[in-house]
Amino acid sequence: MKFKQPTDKQLLKYIPLGGVGDVTRNMHIYEYGGDILIVDCGIGFPDETMPGVDYLVPDVSYLEDKIERVKGIVITHGHEDHFGALPIILQKLPVPVYATKLVRGLIEVKLEVNDMLKKATLRTLDPDQPLRLGNFELEFFRVAHSVPDSVGVLIKTPIGNLIHAADYKFDFTPVDGQPTEVQKLARYGEAGVLCLMSDCLRVEKPGYTLSEKFIEESFEREMRKAPGRIFITTFSSNISRLQQAVNASAKFSRRITFASKTMETYFLMAEKLGYAHLSQKQFVPIKKAQAVPDKNLTIVGSGSQGEPEAALTRIAHGDHKYLEVKEGDTIIFASDQIPGNEEAIRRNIDLLTSLGANVLYTDIMNDIHVSGHASREELKLMLGLVKPRFVVPISGTPIMSKLYRDLVVEMGWKKEAVFVLQNGQTLELGKDFARLGKKISTRHIMVDGLGVGDIGRIVLRDRKLLSEQGMLLAVVPVDATTGKISGKIEIVSRGFVFEKHAQDILEKCQKIVEKVIAKHEGRMKDLSFIREVLEEELEQYIYDKLGRTPMIIPVLIEV
Amino acid sequence: MKFKQPTDKQLLKYIPLGGVGDVTRNMHIYEYGGDILIVDCGIGFPDETMPGVDYLVPDVSYLEDKIERVKGIVITHGHEDHFGALPIILQKLPVPVYATKLVRGLIEVKLEVNDMLKKATLRTLDPDQPLRLGNFELEFFRVAHSVPDSVGVLIKTPIGNLIHAADYKFDFTPVDGQPTEVQKLARYGEAGVLCLMSDCLRVEKPGYTLSEKFIEESFEREMRKAPGRIFITTFSSNISRLQQAVNASAKFSRRITFASKTMETYFLMAEKLGYAHLSQKQFVPIKKAQAVPDKNLTIVGSGSQGEPEAALTRIAHGDHKYLEVKEGDTIIFASDQIPGNEEAIRRNIDLLTSLGANVLYTDIMNDIHVSGHASREELKLMLGLVKPRFVVPISGTPIMSKLYRDLVVEMGWKKEAVFVLQNGQTLELGKDFARLGKKISTRHIMVDGLGVGDIGRIVLRDRKLLSEQGMLLAVVPVDATTGKISGKIEIVSRGFVFEKHAQDILEKCQKIVEKVIAKHEGRMKDLSFIREVLEEELEQYIYDKLGRTPMIIPVLIEV
Repeated sequence: MKFKQPTDKQLLKYIPLGGVGDVTRNMHIYEYGGDILIVDCGIGFPDETMPGVDYLVPDVSYLEDKIERVKGIVITHGHEDHFGALPIILQKLPVPVYATKLVRGLIEVKLEVNDMLKKATLRTLDPDQPLRLGNFELEFFRVAHSVPDSVGVLIKTPIGNLIHAADYKFDFTPVDGQPTEVQKLARYGEAGVLCLMSDCLRVEKPGYTLSEKFIEESFEREMRKAPGRIFITTFSSNISRLQQAVNASAKFSRRITFASKTMETYFLMAEKLGYAHLSQKQFVPIKKAQAVPDKNLTIVGSGSQGEPEAALTRIAHGDHKYLEVKEGDTIIFASDQIPGNEEAIRRNIDLLTSLGANVLYTDIMNDIHVSGHASREELKLMLGLVKPRFVVPISGTPIMSKLYRDLVVEMGWKKEAVFVLQNGQTLELGKDFARLGKKISTRHIMVDGLGVGDIGRIVLRDRKLLSEQGMLLAVVPVDATTGKISGKIEIVSRGFVFEKHAQDILEKCQKIVEKVIAKHEGRMKDLSFIREVLEEELEQYIYDKLGRTPMIIPVLIEV
Repeated sequence: MKFKQPTDKQLLKYIPLGGVGDVTRNMHIYEYGGDILIVDCGIGFPDETMPGVDYLVPDVSYLEDKIERVKGIVITHGHEDHFGALPIILQKLPVPVYATKLVRGLIEVKLEVNDMLKKATLRTLDPDQPLRLGNFELEFFRVAHSVPDSVGVLIKTPIGNLIHAADYKFDFTPVDGQPTEVQKLARYGEAGVLCLMSDCLRVEKPGYTLSEKFIEESFEREMRKAPGRIFITTFSSNISRLQQAVNASAKFSRRITFASKTMETYFLMAEKLGYAHLSQKQFVPIKKAQAVPDKNLTIVGSGSQGEPEAALTRIAHGDHKYLEVKEGDTIIFASDQIPGNEEAIRRNIDLLTSLGANVLYTDIMNDIHVSGHASREELKLMLGLVKPRFVVPISGTPIMSKLYRDLVVEMGWKKEAVFVLQNGQTLELGKDFARLGKKISTRHIMVDGLGVGDIGRIVLRDRKLLSEQGMLLAVVPVDATTGKISGKIEIVSRGFVFEKHAQDILEKCQKIVEKVIAKHEGRMKDLSFIREVLEEELEQYIYDKLGRTPMIIPVLIEV
């Protein structure tokens, strides 16, 4: 006698398309009884192996033949890595999007810019109202994060209840007065939670993340000391931080101006919806800011990560339309350094210092920024409140996911209760078990300019090679009938040597081409053979001469 | 009546060629009475604006017509950014090099590899013996740093005494038992110091840098816990750290093997000279290490910075000849993250974790590495001991130099006593004054393969453009007499689009070229005009179609 195995439809499935083993590009699928629920739809950021790539979006090919089963996308909060892929993904998956009031506002701004607003179906969700999407019954709990109106999701199914806790921390004195709703979490815990999907980004940090409250006090302290203008830089979406800059400035009769358009748009949208407050009297448009005395001006803008096009980077390079740094300016980096950006940030700090500014940053001052993510003790608090049977770390790199598993085990769970997944790895859940299912294939979908997904490994490999060694082009006009050179051989290089000072090398390359063609006159019809020989000979000569290996491109033109 | 100005020969001059406003590429010139003394001769590291560049060396053009006046180069310690440029610079400046015993040994290894050992004049300096080099009388003081046998220099001249304090810290329990010689420094201070050149790299850190002593205890603690092999990674030149790995391993009956050749060469050189100790019994060559039980093996190797060719990076990618990671391995990053390397380091940590290793690194464990540089209280101690009249921060970026100046001012000096210089900026010192002199021009001399200084801004700009957008080549055979197209137009791209999927785009480019040539048939003699029109038209089409701007190279071949 055998127990019946549950059929596919009786299983609850979880598939991360992005955001597992990975900090950004969040997109999570839940499947039950034929219905599909999606949580978040964010972009990812290219690493150094992806030069020229603007950003990445999740690969939704798995969903393309299941569109009618997708009941909706719930967006947890207003950060690009959780909602920024909507303009692209909604083109393939035209399904309703659910978000809280402010988040919906930010999504509207994003969709409008990308000409997708009219095509999208947006619905406002109220964190205090349940929402039924097909077989899923959802409840929401407010979470404190660095942007207001953020939520986590309780996903109720006949198999059991899941908690999807995207970016959160337990801040009991947040800027918007809305702490993480611990009572709801405790209630869910009492009712029983089958599986918790939890943010683990900050698992490396002991203790508690400092409350946002301290930042405003630090801003005030620096404003008291500053002899002139203050420039505060942070992420454009960090509305809470901007509100603090506004509040502190008000106390010191400082008016506020925005050096970045996107930041201004986001903040004014938040203000319109009642999530931010900036009086008309305090605000001053950037064009008129010059008339405000230095002691009465606070400038806010992007560039905290050294982004090439951001306001502060342009200021550091003397390239901003309205602003330049002068002695007496104070510049506050109210932001973390995202791994990979340190060098660009350091460059900005150095440039601004050299221009005479007094630059404050987290390496020398630890109270001008706090993270939006839970530290170790808060991660434990979440686990203690909801007491899940199984746990999946999300929004973390492999090492963070592993450290989170260690932490869960430290609290008494068995190692087997924690699933460190990879993107595309299905987790199958039954009433009393969880197990790995199929791994679906998920590609890196890269966006470069207007092209989505048309760049792959070969293009990136060529870009990398070109960037390190440049290229050398040998154009050879060949008489189609005689197989002899029938014009001038052109040697062109880019990113290889400074041509003016390397005429001898380029001339020698020309000679090598002539020799090869003369030697293999009989085989001129075999273009790929001739090309190969040319490549080899030129490569060898250049390597011996310069120790370099540029990309060599022989072009044989039949005339 | 006027006081006579001192003549040029009566002034003491200091000119940093590298290593000021800059952490690496240290090379400092002192000039007095016609004689020239050089301190250090190191390489610098390329930043992200210099793709493909291997390293940078100081620009010594200022010295090229003054060779006979250069009395020698004193090397303060055995790190690449202080001696690594010798193989290149000695070719231009064949002058004697002075270094302590171990440092001389490391220099010999370096020169030998570069085929320069026989051409160089090396002299061993004894830290307890004065040394006269022309008009300069030198004394030396031992300093604690992360490599043994490091010194600072007292430079005595009739104008006054200078102290050149390159990389140092005040560690009273260093691995080699040789703390910084505070008595000598106190004596110099009493006798009077005109100017102090001081390391300021770690001015951002409050308090004291932890003693090296703690590392050995941390290694022991981890070895006690580790279920299998231990891999310790640090810089190849960090001989003290390696000695600690050896000492701790000995206590746990662990044998030592080297995963990196350079590290092995350096360590065995130090051992030969009596600066390191590893018994034949404890050492095991990498080829035979597999036979050693896991619990009895410690592997040391490079890769702590995520360098692409280093042992640990190859292991992380499954590419090492002898080693692969398995469950139960413990990997210790006994190193700081050099700004700019964080992303590569994180990638290694993630890969190694995914392969099953337990990875320990400074973000989660603060006692497996200590810096070799002085923190704020130590920088103050140096100032307090030598009481210089003037101060120049060296080995720091602009922000570090500025923070160091703030620190000196905090201690009671006037702001004018601190000179925050740029490379090439002369400081002129008289008996009772210091003032800025001429700024000599210093270029970035980049080394790429065998080429030294043949790469400049244009080449790098092209590399950058090629890396971000790739390139598109249009080769057009033109009849020299008729000005008509006389063969097939070839469109070739690299790093731009995946050609197989973009045939329509390439064909359209071909059509555009044909149209342009047909339209301007009359002006075919004006090749630069035709090239310009082709570039413009292709650029416009591609930008409209894909939102990208690859490098466009039209080649017109006259046949």
